[in-house]
Amino acid sequence: MLLCDIGNSFYHFYKNGAFWKEEAYKLPNLKTKEPVYTISVNDKALKRLKEYYEVIEIAEFCSLNTGYVGLGVDRAFACMAIDDGVIVDAGTAITIDVMQGGSHLGGFVIPGFAALKGAFDSISDKLDVGVNFGVSLDMLPQNTKDAVSFGLLYPVISSIESASRGKFIHFTGGDGQFLSRFFDNSIVDELLVFKGMQKALKREGIW
Amino acid sequence: MLLCDIGNSFYHFYKNGAFWKEEAYKLPNLKTKEPVYTISVNDKALKRLKEYYEVIEIAEFCSLNTGYVGLGVDRAFACMAIDDGVIVDAGTAITIDVMQGGSHLGGFVIPGFAALKGAFDSISDKLDVGVNFGVSLDMLPQNTKDAVSFGLLYPVISSIESASRGKFIHFTGGDGQFLSRFFDNSIVDELLVFKGMQKALKREGIW
Repeated sequence: MLLCDIGNSFYHFYKNGAFWKEEAYKLPNLKTKEPVYTISVNDKALKRLKEYYEVIEIAEFCSLNTGYVGLGVDRAFACMAIDDGVIVDAGTAITIDVMQGGSHLGGFVIPGFAALKGAFDSISDKLDVGVNFGVSLDMLPQNTKDAVSFGLLYPVISSIESASRGKFIHFTGGDGQFLSRFFDNSIVDELLVFKGMQKALKREGIW
Repeated sequence: MLLCDIGNSFYHFYKNGAFWKEEAYKLPNLKTKEPVYTISVNDKALKRLKEYYEVIEIAEFCSLNTGYVGLGVDRAFACMAIDDGVIVDAGTAITIDVMQGGSHLGGFVIPGFAALKGAFDSISDKLDVGVNFGVSLDMLPQNTKDAVSFGLLYPVISSIESASRGKFIHFTGGDGQFLSRFFDNSIVDELLVFKGMQKALKREGIW
C-alpha cells in the first residue's frame, strides 16, 4: 500500500518500508496507478495529486482521543502512533504535542528554523548573518553571528525541554534528527505519521 | 541635556526626566536647536537626524567591560547601567544580556513578537490567525489560535527564564512591561539605555 502525507513544503510517501519526499509545488512522479492513501494540510498540493492519481483521503479514520479543536491531520496521526510521550514534528513549522495514557493533552506550534531565520532577516540587515548551527548553548554568545544562532536555537530547544517535563520525546520531520541531539531522552522516528496512518487503516480493516 | 537612542523602528528621546519616542522613518520635530547626544543602530534614521539637528554621537564613550565583538550600542549602554543581572530589551528584536560584577558575560538576540508573528504568517494561511496575548502558559493549548499564541510567547519566555538562571531581570523596550508580568524577580525600566548614556557622559564630565 502507498501512503502519502502532504505537508506545507513536501509530499511525504511511504511504501513497503521505504519512505521518500518530493517538493509540494510540483506533481510527484509515482510510476504507479495504485491508490494513494492520503492525509494533507496543503489543499493546493492535494488537488494536484488528485488530478493524476487515485487519492483516498483517510483523515476521517483518525480516532485520536483529544479535546483539541482543529488539530492538523498530520499531527493527529503522529499522535495516534504514541500512547505516552511528547511528539515533535520539526518541519516548516515545529509542532509539539503531548500524549498521556493514549490521550492527547494538547500542543503548540512554533515557526520552523527557515521561518525563524526569515524573522531575523526581516528586522535588520545587521541580523541577516549566517547561522552557526554548531553554536554552543552552554556558553553565552560573544559575537553577532553566534548571538543570532543561539537566539534561533535556544528558544526552540528550551521551550521543547520545558513543555516536555521529563517525558520521552519522539522527533520526526526534516529537522527532527538535528533537534534530537539536544535531548538525551529522545528518539528520531521519520515514520511516526505513517505509523499512525497504518494503525488507523488496520483498525478499519483496510491494511 | 537631550539624549537620543535610535533603534530599528523608533527614535527614543530623553530630557529632564521625560522620555518619548517617534517613528524612525520620518524626521522627529524636536522644537529645539540644542545638541542631541545620540547613539544609533539605524544608519538611515541617524543620517536624517544629522541633516536637521546638531547630533553628537557618544558611542565611543561606552566603557563596558566585555569580550563580545560587535555589541550594538543600545545593548552596550543598557548593560552599563546594571552591574549584576539580566537585561532584556524587548523591541523589534529582543536582546538578552547578562551582567555579573560589572562585566558583560555575553548575550543573544531573538526576533520580537511582530517578527515572530510574521514568521507564522509566512508558513501557512492556516497559521495566520490572531494572537491571544492572554493565553495561559500553564495549560497546553486546545485550539489553533491558542497553539500559535502559546508558540509565540512560550519560546521567548522559557528562553529568558532558562538563560537568566535565577538572576534578577531588568526589562526595557516596548514589550518590556508585558514580558515582566511573567517573571517575579524582575522590574521594568524604560530608561535603562538612557541611564547608561548618562553614566558615560558623567564619566566624561559632559553631564
